[in-house]
Amino acid sequence: MNTSGNESKEPRSVTLLLHCPLRLGLAASLTQFIYAHGRLLYHDQYVDPENDDHYYTRLRWDVSSFAMTDEEMAERLRLLIGTGPETEWSLHYSDEVLRMAVFVSKDPWCLYDILARRESGEWKVELPLIVSNHPDLEPVARRFGVTFRAFSVTKENKSDVEREQLQLLQSSRVDFVVLARYMQILTGGFVRAYPNRIINIHHAFLPAFPGARPYHSARERGVKMIGATSHYVTETLDAGPIIEQDVQRVSHRHATKDLIRFGRDLEKVVLSRAIWSHLRRKIIVHKGRTVVFD
Amino acid sequence: MNTSGNESKEPRSVTLLLHCPLRLGLAASLTQFIYAHGRLLYHDQYVDPENDDHYYTRLRWDVSSFAMTDEEMAERLRLLIGTGPETEWSLHYSDEVLRMAVFVSKDPWCLYDILARRESGEWKVELPLIVSNHPDLEPVARRFGVTFRAFSVTKENKSDVEREQLQLLQSSRVDFVVLARYMQILTGGFVRAYPNRIINIHHAFLPAFPGARPYHSARERGVKMIGATSHYVTETLDAGPIIEQDVQRVSHRHATKDLIRFGRDLEKVVLSRAIWSHLRRKIIVHKGRTVVFD
Amino acid sequence: MNTSGNESKEPRSVTLLLHCPLRLGLAASLTQFIYAHGRLLYHDQYVDPENDDHYYTRLRWDVSSFAMTDEEMAERLRLLIGTGPETEWSLHYSDEVLRMAVFVSKDPWCLYDILARRESGEWKVELPLIVSNHPDLEPVARRFGVTFRAFSVTKENKSDVEREQLQLLQSSRVDFVVLARYMQILTGGFVRAYPNRIINIHHAFLPAFPGARPYHSARERGVKMIGATSHYVTETLDAGPIIEQDVQRVSHRHATKDLIRFGRDLEKVVLSRAIWSHLRRKIIVHKGRTVVFD
Amino acid sequence: MNTSGNESKEPRSVTLLLHCPLRLGLAASLTQFIYAHGRLLYHDQYVDPENDDHYYTRLRWDVSSFAMTDEEMAERLRLLIGTGPETEWSLHYSDEVLRMAVFVSKDPWCLYDILARRESGEWKVELPLIVSNHPDLEPVARRFGVTFRAFSVTKENKSDVEREQLQLLQSSRVDFVVLARYMQILTGGFVRAYPNRIINIHHAFLPAFPGARPYHSARERGVKMIGATSHYVTETLDAGPIIEQDVQRVSHRHATKDLIRFGRDLEKVVLSRAIWSHLRRKIIVHKGRTVVFD
Repeated sequence: MNTSGNESKEPRSVTLLLHCPLRLGLAASLTQFIYAHGRLLYHDQYVDPENDDHYYTRLRWDVSSFAMTDEEMAERLRLLIGTGPETEWSLHYSDEVLRMAVFVSKDPWCLYDILARRESGEWKVELPLIVSNHPDLEPVARRFGVTFRAFSVTKENKSDVEREQLQLLQSSRVDFVVLARYMQILTGGFVRAYPNRIINIHHAFLPAFPGARPYHSARERGVKMIGATSHYVTETLDAGPIIEQDVQRVSHRHATKDLIRFGRDLEKVVLSRAIWSHLRRKIIVHKGRTVVFD
Repeated sequence: MNTSGNESKEPRSVTLLLHCPLRLGLAASLTQFIYAHGRLLYHDQYVDPENDDHYYTRLRWDVSSFAMTDEEMAERLRLLIGTGPETEWSLHYSDEVLRMAVFVSKDPWCLYDILARRESGEWKVELPLIVSNHPDLEPVARRFGVTFRAFSVTKENKSDVEREQLQLLQSSRVDFVVLARYMQILTGGFVRAYPNRIINIHHAFLPAFPGARPYHSARERGVKMIGATSHYVTETLDAGPIIEQDVQRVSHRHATKDLIRFGRDLEKVVLSRAIWSHLRRKIIVHKGRTVVFD
Repeated sequence: MNTSGNESKEPRSVTLLLHCPLRLGLAASLTQFIYAHGRLLYHDQYVDPENDDHYYTRLRWDVSSFAMTDEEMAERLRLLIGTGPETEWSLHYSDEVLRMAVFVSKDPWCLYDILARRESGEWKVELPLIVSNHPDLEPVARRFGVTFRAFSVTKENKSDVEREQLQLLQSSRVDFVVLARYMQILTGGFVRAYPNRIINIHHAFLPAFPGARPYHSARERGVKMIGATSHYVTETLDAGPIIEQDVQRVSHRHATKDLIRFGRDLEKVVLSRAIWSHLRRKIIVHKGRTVVFD
Repeated sequence: MNTSGNESKEPRSVTLLLHCPLRLGLAASLTQFIYAHGRLLYHDQYVDPENDDHYYTRLRWDVSSFAMTDEEMAERLRLLIGTGPETEWSLHYSDEVLRMAVFVSKDPWCLYDILARRESGEWKVELPLIVSNHPDLEPVARRFGVTFRAFSVTKENKSDVEREQLQLLQSSRVDFVVLARYMQILTGGFVRAYPNRIINIHHAFLPAFPGARPYHSARERGVKMIGATSHYVTETLDAGPIIEQDVQRVSHRHATKDLIRFGRDLEKVVLSRAIWSHLRRKIIVHKGRTVVFD
């Protein structure tokens, strides 16, 4: 029902995400190609002076009246961009709706938040599947009519469960995974199957307090602010590229349960901003860091 | 399922909210009375040096093994506190669950957030009724099994509608009302029926940008931060006692639709913090301002 | 002594600030011209979709080995940019050090902060003159070896004083003026002499609490955050284009004197960020708003 | 010249800082004793439910017309408070002005900020001594008329230098030490001489990025916010009780030099808030954490 941030009524567009070593004339070539055939809707770029002037850009343009097929356009871009070293790019069409799986355990707040945003039209995303290692949140999934699959995970069956989960993701044609307070550590095999396509929310201001029970650690250490961090999952725990972070001021008056209460809101907002940036194709990952365009 | 912030397993307790002119020995008398019969669970107080040393306090104590009835306890407190000028106090028992009505129009985000918090047990509150001036959000109410009543409001029938709404609130034994993006201005008659018991969320950092379309005004003015404000409703529009505010940094890059998008998260978090403080009996209103205990 | 943010060791560069209606190929022409003769150091641009796709850009490039004079370069840019409606641009050379006058009354914190930043080399700026309507801060100026001129301002002599101040600014070849807690309202005549070149710090989150004694008003209204706003001065009080804002959370526990204490730090940081952006030629003013590049 | 936050015109007062296991009637006894002889100016208390209901309180009262000597009053308090386990308390008279030494290396911003606050009367503190391991900031000290002592520190002479510095602190009757970007690690011997009386500013959001070059590490890790932390120095590096923290949002667009620039303002504000709380006797340290009263 809400349509802000919703492109459904807009003409068909395509988003180019590109990074490569800075090259004279590339931006001009790209924009001239676009202007020659259509209308530029978004153009942002960034040069990293601390990384050999590496170049990052995001362009979005109207393709509703482009006088060529998607394949021809991609081919033309391939020629323009070339195939130099450290060059990566991708095209994303506005009529391709991403398919997301959400992994949860027992905590409901991030899941409710995700379901509400999708249901209200705030996000354009398909949600074919909720996966959990506990049955507790099945009623929530059912309330929103989403398939829920619970797996009982033990030390012994973990690799079998992950294999089954991966098959499920494939058969559900899932594009990316959101760990919405999923209290299991994924193995390297699982993570490698979805590179830069698994988004986690960690309930601390990373790199402070990685691992388990960060609010207890924060209280124990006596910090004056707590935080939350959303990041892409890599094979090293809580060390993946950070997408978004936020904090809230606390004081000695706040017990651990207060930190947990504040943290719920931090977690859901920080995770949702990350998902939004992922859905809107705002993120380039390079050398363990993210460029997140506005 | 979540139990942080949930008192359900705790012994029965009572909360005293009191404000009066500062008086020697009052705090000592109160705490001694409590300690003589039970266990003090919370004690905070505040003296306002800019308001003739007016005294504000919140005490919560275990009454599960108090050797007197609630009536006797209230009578003893009445004697201790006395009946001086500008003295107000109230007692709130932990087994009384407040009943809340939510008023909405077409915007779903605050409503979803409220429903999710109640459903997940984050809040202990009854929600017998959702009222709207549009039918749009009825499916949301139905999904959570809450009664939804739509009223078509016109200039002509406004007072009739409000009368009907007030009757509905009474018959549903509603204790307080939350305006969760309700796009109607309530008349003085309605407001007077629920003094300091109607909580509104305004989508701006009051007193900046009162009234309609604050995000458009914020963009027009070129502010570098946007905000949201929850407050008790009084007869003067957007001028009631402020309960909670928060802001988010923006820049020239953010169009009005971005401000609206950021604002949704600000609104729901700020409103929910206010409702939480109200539910937990953390708020004293005095002279148009709030004292909100931690 | 500190050299971060100091360009003194960098080769000579020029900054172009430009805004105009969006025009196909302009960005490409500009960057190609620059690349043909030198090295691009900074390039940012912004298109305002809510303002007829108006285009704003900031480019900075190395001119140390440009094979043409500054005049020739400016002429070439003039031809590239053209003279359409609503088109404004300016060039700023890194070896031109701006000259700043600071106006104060009795409050020292912003003045000390400015003097320290200049003295430590954090800013590259000349400070030939401090003007005041009170003699109180003369010792501070003297301590840092800066000329201090006090004017006794009354209702009657105000226009005479302003005329004298303007002459002083001219004879000191002042480029821009900073009102660092100057408790006088400048007349339209004075303001028009330095369009978008007078920076004020207002001790509130504008448009909330314009005018006098905003901390008292904030306390009276019971807001839960206080703020500060730096803006260019226009003929309407506290309504000029906002450059920077920031806030700090407060509670009922904070008396007016606490708000004033917190506010001092907000004021000096917010004002200094605005001065930095002005000095580094990061700001374009258009239609009462600012574009502030990173 | 500024008098907010300045108690110089107020009657003589005393501040009691006390922590001990919660005890029935202690608060009442203390306030009754005070009210019996004078006027209570400040009263805050906190019970830590996660630490066996340990009790922390700060009381400040007018002693200008107390009908007993300071010694008699202290003796009466000693009897009231008793000598149970884990009980610590101290009395601080408003006419005792603390003496602070500031240790610096080459970075001037925190030093300037401290000097300006003292000079303008924002803080009531004596500053007999600035110590450095480099001569660079001597002109700054001289400008403000403060004694400056430089020590050339090497691996070999470190313990000799520290012994000399400690003698200097003693002969200057220094009460507490501020490490205002002092780039040396103090030995345990030095730290033990000033327990909870050495305040450091670390340029990161601890416990993230302890040790050297935190802004470089923050950029390398790709965090979306940077921070600063002031804490009491203990024998373990960057692990002492945290007094104050703050953060600022950054993005991929900000190079390390931008983080350093933002960090300067964070550092000086966070350090100054900690010094203010220390000067105003707002801090109780217990079990590696601080209670910082408002």
